[in-house]
Amino acid sequence: MRMIEFLHKDSVGPVVSRDMLIPLGEDGFRLENGESLPELSLRYETYGTLNAKGDNVVWVCSPLTADAHVAGFYTPEDKKAGWWDALIGPGKPVDTDRFFVVCSNILGGCQGSTGPSSKDPRTGKPYGSAFPNITIGDMVSAQKLLADALNIKRLYCVIGGSMGGFQAMKWSIYYPDYVERCIVIASSPRFSSQALGFEIVGRDIIIQDPNFNGGDYYEGAIPAVGLANARKLAHITYLSAVGMEQKFKRAAVEEAHTKATAAFSTPFDMGLPLESYLRYQGTKFVSRFDANSYLHIAYATDTFDLETEYGSLETAFQNVHAEFLNVNLSTDWLFPPHESRKITNALLNAGKVITSLELDTAFGHDGFLLEVGNLGKAVARFLNSKVQAEPDNTQVVPIFQNNKDLELLESLIPEKSSILDLGCGGGLLIDTLWKSKKVTGVGVEKNFNSILDCIERDVPVIQKNYLEESELTSFANNSFDYAVFNRTFQEVKNQVQLLREILRIAKRAVITFPNFGHWTVCTALCFQGRMPKSKDLPYEWYNTPNIHLFTYSDFIHLCKEENLHIEKLVAVNDKLSSKVLTALGIKNLGAERVVAIVSR
Amino acid sequence: MRMIEFLHKDSVGPVVSRDMLIPLGEDGFRLENGESLPELSLRYETYGTLNAKGDNVVWVCSPLTADAHVAGFYTPEDKKAGWWDALIGPGKPVDTDRFFVVCSNILGGCQGSTGPSSKDPRTGKPYGSAFPNITIGDMVSAQKLLADALNIKRLYCVIGGSMGGFQAMKWSIYYPDYVERCIVIASSPRFSSQALGFEIVGRDIIIQDPNFNGGDYYEGAIPAVGLANARKLAHITYLSAVGMEQKFKRAAVEEAHTKATAAFSTPFDMGLPLESYLRYQGTKFVSRFDANSYLHIAYATDTFDLETEYGSLETAFQNVHAEFLNVNLSTDWLFPPHESRKITNALLNAGKVITSLELDTAFGHDGFLLEVGNLGKAVARFLNSKVQAEPDNTQVVPIFQNNKDLELLESLIPEKSSILDLGCGGGLLIDTLWKSKKVTGVGVEKNFNSILDCIERDVPVIQKNYLEESELTSFANNSFDYAVFNRTFQEVKNQVQLLREILRIAKRAVITFPNFGHWTVCTALCFQGRMPKSKDLPYEWYNTPNIHLFTYSDFIHLCKEENLHIEKLVAVNDKLSSKVLTALGIKNLGAERVVAIVSR
Repeated sequence: MRMIEFLHKDSVGPVVSRDMLIPLGEDGFRLENGESLPELSLRYETYGTLNAKGDNVVWVCSPLTADAHVAGFYTPEDKKAGWWDALIGPGKPVDTDRFFVVCSNILGGCQGSTGPSSKDPRTGKPYGSAFPNITIGDMVSAQKLLADALNIKRLYCVIGGSMGGFQAMKWSIYYPDYVERCIVIASSPRFSSQALGFEIVGRDIIIQDPNFNGGDYYEGAIPAVGLANARKLAHITYLSAVGMEQKFKRAAVEEAHTKATAAFSTPFDMGLPLESYLRYQGTKFVSRFDANSYLHIAYATDTFDLETEYGSLETAFQNVHAEFLNVNLSTDWLFPPHESRKITNALLNAGKVITSLELDTAFGHDGFLLEVGNLGKAVARFLNSKVQAEPDNTQVVPIFQNNKDLELLESLIPEKSSILDLGCGGGLLIDTLWKSKKVTGVGVEKNFNSILDCIERDVPVIQKNYLEESELTSFANNSFDYAVFNRTFQEVKNQVQLLREILRIAKRAVITFPNFGHWTVCTALCFQGRMPKSKDLPYEWYNTPNIHLFTYSDFIHLCKEENLHIEKLVAVNDKLSSKVLTALGIKNLGAERVVAIVSR
Repeated sequence: MRMIEFLHKDSVGPVVSRDMLIPLGEDGFRLENGESLPELSLRYETYGTLNAKGDNVVWVCSPLTADAHVAGFYTPEDKKAGWWDALIGPGKPVDTDRFFVVCSNILGGCQGSTGPSSKDPRTGKPYGSAFPNITIGDMVSAQKLLADALNIKRLYCVIGGSMGGFQAMKWSIYYPDYVERCIVIASSPRFSSQALGFEIVGRDIIIQDPNFNGGDYYEGAIPAVGLANARKLAHITYLSAVGMEQKFKRAAVEEAHTKATAAFSTPFDMGLPLESYLRYQGTKFVSRFDANSYLHIAYATDTFDLETEYGSLETAFQNVHAEFLNVNLSTDWLFPPHESRKITNALLNAGKVITSLELDTAFGHDGFLLEVGNLGKAVARFLNSKVQAEPDNTQVVPIFQNNKDLELLESLIPEKSSILDLGCGGGLLIDTLWKSKKVTGVGVEKNFNSILDCIERDVPVIQKNYLEESELTSFANNSFDYAVFNRTFQEVKNQVQLLREILRIAKRAVITFPNFGHWTVCTALCFQGRMPKSKDLPYEWYNTPNIHLFTYSDFIHLCKEENLHIEKLVAVNDKLSSKVLTALGIKNLGAERVVAIVSR
């Protein structure tokens, strides 16, 4: 929510801000609370060129206090780039050589768009306390009028972090046919109670400033003290505890020690670097922001609550057509990962195309402005990927010619079924099955780079530790035909619980596993006295991820205990066929690996 | 830091507050910053009876804003018990039938003790801005004068939560021979930068209240608005995010929805239950607390920093004699567990007797006042345990007659050595070795109830997941003769890293493990095709904690790879002796379990 200073040579270069006075009817701009604004003007910036079709647009939704200046410089001498310049520019993740990028100052703001400090045409004075309540929806409706005025026919993508994510979601909900992709970063379906608590305190601090005067202070002194203190408080919530410790620890220790008993440190002013830093943040903010705008935009943020508004999050998203990328930040405690994941879960359970990322950062909530390396990679791949197309039958379909398991999987999973691939890697299985059999799939994967490959392959993927059954509770009952656990079931800690969980999510589970009953295992233990190693069990005993090994027979017994129906059980040996093993009656000793399909 | 309302029938009953005007010399009460107070008066309460020796005292140190009324009621009709009444009283964890309990209002406070609102005898007016800077050390020195005046000869225990923990630590450091036990709850060696940030904002809010007048407001209006807002902010930091969500979520949803567009909800007053709750907390606080006291006590808290003051935490604690109990709270983010653990680590590395607990709670920092069930159990055991005495030779020494491993361990570990028992359970091994061979030990254990048993046995124990090498980094190099891993090495995820880690901490590692090369394992796999089960491997393959099994020979190979010296390697079979196995040359096939001693 703060503006960060960047200086980039590879910038989109000198840019200009423009104002659009939106043409309105007699009623003015109708707000969601029933009131209306007589006039609506939005300040905005654009970079790149709108194509003839008017459909190469990336629309940027700004966070609470940012302006329209999202990239580039106003003059070549200007040292301060736009607030997301690291993400937007020629050759950058949001590539201005390809995309037409638009960002506007939000409705209610004080940086060029209509807000409480704007002149009310009916009175000739600033609105002040007369400015009506606005919502995130109002902000988005206003932006849509701007897009229409700019002759934009579709949004290739809408992107927003923090409160910008609130707007991005509303864009996809209000204009489902207009928005093709939606990137939501460090956001959630509503504020947590803790975050709301801080908002409430900040609000009280401002409105109780003696200069506030119920919002009508434009002719006198402004409520600078209250606004600065509210900003200091909010600023702490944008940082992580670990980030603050790294930044201030040493200085704090030295200063506290030397100053604690010194005359110039008092209970009213400790003389700490952290104190000066926070006071600087407060003062800087007062110089660029209006208290009424802050309160009105904060109010729109605080009352945003998709679940309450639509009855459920799934209902909120039920009509969206956009593909989503949802990113949360590990140390963000203003929009914590578990709140952000609710967006992902709702979209999944509403049957939408969603990829979600868990981004590791020490920057806290500010990470959406600062953690641009990995965030940029994901955004770039997401923007370059094609919308999932009908399979092209003239295309050569790749098969897994050197891998019996995957050949088997392909043969076993029927056309047009849906699969959840737990541990999907780069998404090869889903991609292959889509192309050969129109199988639709969602991948679950832990590894960031594998997820980037999935995004490139257009395979929707959720970043999760799929080995923990507790991570899978967000998937709805019976939401897939098949759940695939390829070669990783022996890595699971609670196998019974996980098996139950995936059979809750999918009608059938496809499990492939190395057989610990193979004769090479027996001989290694009996004759060499050592834990076995083989091509299927390639690790040392002390570093293997295979923590719960088991045999062909063990698996059959488990299925009996759990009352599961074994639909298929194939003993795989790379030299002998399954039929030969069966004929010889040595499936347990002979199977190197096993492929099983089970159902309840 | 808040006062909580309890109503207990089993209370210590009607109690009275008393004031002690401390007799001072000409210099008055000298403060650590060099200034002095002309007069020192402390308000205090006592419960129970001081014994003839004056050594049955439990001294309670209060958190930031609490008063001396820690237990009981002022009148039988009084509905509000003291703030830690759940912990203190007849038959309660701090048993007033046995202990003489004392709590005083702290120096700088406004609830009866000398503070900024007290009358300065030199001027006849309240100190106000003239009140000198105080420290946690000053608070403790003042309390010691009270203890002397009460004829107290020793403190059986000093106990404090939050800022009370700061005082408790200072007590043990300043008066090492006077303090026998020290309980520190939800505290840390200093505030984190994040916590300090909130303190700074709160302070600015108060001192910028127009009524504050540099601290001299006693003759006019008080800075009620600033103090209330600072309290609202601080109040949020005492709660956990999850606790706030549980408390306010449903109400917030309903109200926000119905009121967001309603006339009585505005950006200045949303009309939410959370808003009323926080405002109530602010107003209630203003009615009982003085702004100057708040600032002065907060200042003492903010500048408390044992590491800076003493050069290192180990140095801070080097002379203490007290046994410590240190408790952290899982959802406390004001004094987060990782900060609290620094106290434990420093005491351990300074060679002190310390037991530490990780208490699970949803109450956040307030858990030290509310999570009295498990906290009380630990406190009760800690207070009832005897100080570790010289072994009594007339006592029957228990041995492990039915357990070859433990008999072996007892025979293998020499007299007067020191051990770290990783996975110590109820502390039986350490207790036994102490009694039979004067072996000193520290246990590490995950299970809360086992830890209670350790406390009862006087076995110092640290609550940690000892299976993770990353949890052991806080132990200093070579701090023990032996690290014992009894029957749990096969449960470790990163065995090589863990082995290296324990051989960094101890000169030798004693490891006992089930032998996966035993002939019953081979036959189960080869002839039954099943994962083995036996008395040493009693689990099913899918629920066993034994995630990295290995054989007698595997272990030898690992030691070779790691260049470790195998000092002992005993193949244990409950029917055949180790000698017989060796003579038959079947140690790998014959050993049910193995006991090894290895060193670098």
